[in-house]
Amino acid sequence: MDEISVRAPASVSNVVCGFDCLGFALERPFDEITLRRISERTVRIINRDQFGLPTDPERNVAGRTLLAMLEAANADFGFEFESTKHIKPGSGIGSSAASACGAAVAANRLLGEKYSQMELVEFALAGEILASGSRHADNVAPCIFGGFTLVRSTDPLDIVQLDFPPLFVTIIHPQIEIKTAEARAILPKEVPLKSAVQNWANLGSLVAALAKGDYGLLARSLEDEIVEPARRPLIPNFDKVKEASIGVGALGGGISGSGPSVFMLSEAAETAQDVEKAMTNVFADTDIEFKTYLSGVQIGGVLCGPQVQ
Amino acid sequence: MDEISVRAPASVSNVVCGFDCLGFALERPFDEITLRRISERTVRIINRDQFGLPTDPERNVAGRTLLAMLEAANADFGFEFESTKHIKPGSGIGSSAASACGAAVAANRLLGEKYSQMELVEFALAGEILASGSRHADNVAPCIFGGFTLVRSTDPLDIVQLDFPPLFVTIIHPQIEIKTAEARAILPKEVPLKSAVQNWANLGSLVAALAKGDYGLLARSLEDEIVEPARRPLIPNFDKVKEASIGVGALGGGISGSGPSVFMLSEAAETAQDVEKAMTNVFADTDIEFKTYLSGVQIGGVLCGPQVQ
Repeated sequence: MDEISVRAPASVSNVVCGFDCLGFALERPFDEITLRRISERTVRIINRDQFGLPTDPERNVAGRTLLAMLEAANADFGFEFESTKHIKPGSGIGSSAASACGAAVAANRLLGEKYSQMELVEFALAGEILASGSRHADNVAPCIFGGFTLVRSTDPLDIVQLDFPPLFVTIIHPQIEIKTAEARAILPKEVPLKSAVQNWANLGSLVAALAKGDYGLLARSLEDEIVEPARRPLIPNFDKVKEASIGVGALGGGISGSGPSVFMLSEAAETAQDVEKAMTNVFADTDIEFKTYLSGVQIGGVLCGPQVQ
Repeated sequence: MDEISVRAPASVSNVVCGFDCLGFALERPFDEITLRRISERTVRIINRDQFGLPTDPERNVAGRTLLAMLEAANADFGFEFESTKHIKPGSGIGSSAASACGAAVAANRLLGEKYSQMELVEFALAGEILASGSRHADNVAPCIFGGFTLVRSTDPLDIVQLDFPPLFVTIIHPQIEIKTAEARAILPKEVPLKSAVQNWANLGSLVAALAKGDYGLLARSLEDEIVEPARRPLIPNFDKVKEASIGVGALGGGISGSGPSVFMLSEAAETAQDVEKAMTNVFADTDIEFKTYLSGVQIGGVLCGPQVQ
């Protein structure tokens, strides 16, 4: 096999009380990636979109991932990576993770499935670190495995695939820029033990609620009094969006990644549509451009082969 | 019905990364309690053990619970509470919770099952607060419901019953006194966000591991770098006990409640026995008296009726 096409899903990380560990994959948007084996021992990047991402493989998330894999595999060939991104860089829904994971899964196919999924997470992290500046697997993990994942540890990697019930996701992406570094710097270095306890009780309950399919408990567990209060001011209309969404039946939600996207979870597809309308109404009164997405929780992670032909 | 006998189980709270929220009930030890309806509108306490607990109902954990229930039920009668405690007060395995919950469940039977289990938790908390000085449901919840429970919130009460696989518990109770107030005072008021994140990732993974019956993940999740380092110095030989236990195959464990008891979890009954020997060996070299317990995770909470006749 000399060529493979894959779809790499967007993902939500920092799921409310699951800051820095809990994430899930989205059915849409996704990036379309084609990887070709080439005889030159190099990585060639072709961007088929308007985002102007670097074509120098050392400065490109997918490029870094591919270089790491070629080196590890001691390959005597190279790759041409052609990408049509639909996940806007900087949107907070795992754009760089999709590039890195799409590249990793596609390359693994062309390398004869040499590596395990956990190894692919490692390779994708080699790319992702270029975008985020640190070794965070909370978008990479759901992008590789699909569904809900919990990163128990990054070093060594320990990723838990969670059971979960049907859930529908509404996302609004206000078209403003938030720098990940700034969103990190705004966080408290220390937190009151009492707030930390409240947060881990909520995350434990959230994991139990997902496993049981208990939507009421899920809604009650979607609380965060540590990260959300610090980052909320960075997101225009955050409180209004959240209030309006829950007002029409959303279970809850919060900032996706480090923003600016905001996600809400619903039990029913129709509720997720109502949430989209409610979010739209909030932003319709402003001059901030925005985009919304409706999605299920994606299963399977990066999909390759016949599904995407 | 004018008389009922119940067994109230011991329980482990502060389960490693589940400080202040996660607990489980033990098959042994347990308290034996008989409650009788009496015509006087009062609560009479009879202690059939050597612990010398107060017989003034206002100063007795079970007495407070019973007074609260009689008042809420607007009863024109009273209770005689006769208790043979096998759970030593101050051992860190939920002695006061057993008294309060045993009283609550027995009284509810004599009141015609007037109250729900969640209401019984509330009544038991009215007693438990006398012993602990604060409203903590992490022993009361497993004692009422059995199994593993997660207290998501104390106000309002929100208790999650967790699924869990077969587990065997070994407990060593060094016969020293630790005051709950002192064990609280030793805790940091603030914790680094990084440690808090590590802890909630571990608790989320622990809940997932219990639900999946994944013993390997369970073992990896039993980590606590916040409370254990602060309280470890209060427990003689803590590090040695932990190391020896894991050395013979325990999955992990830690301080039970605020100590001095230490608990370890094992996948197999024989391992739990080996852990008991290993713990005993550690303390055999000292002049500290100790007692050990072997137990399964108890199901059902306070048991009443034919089981205990």
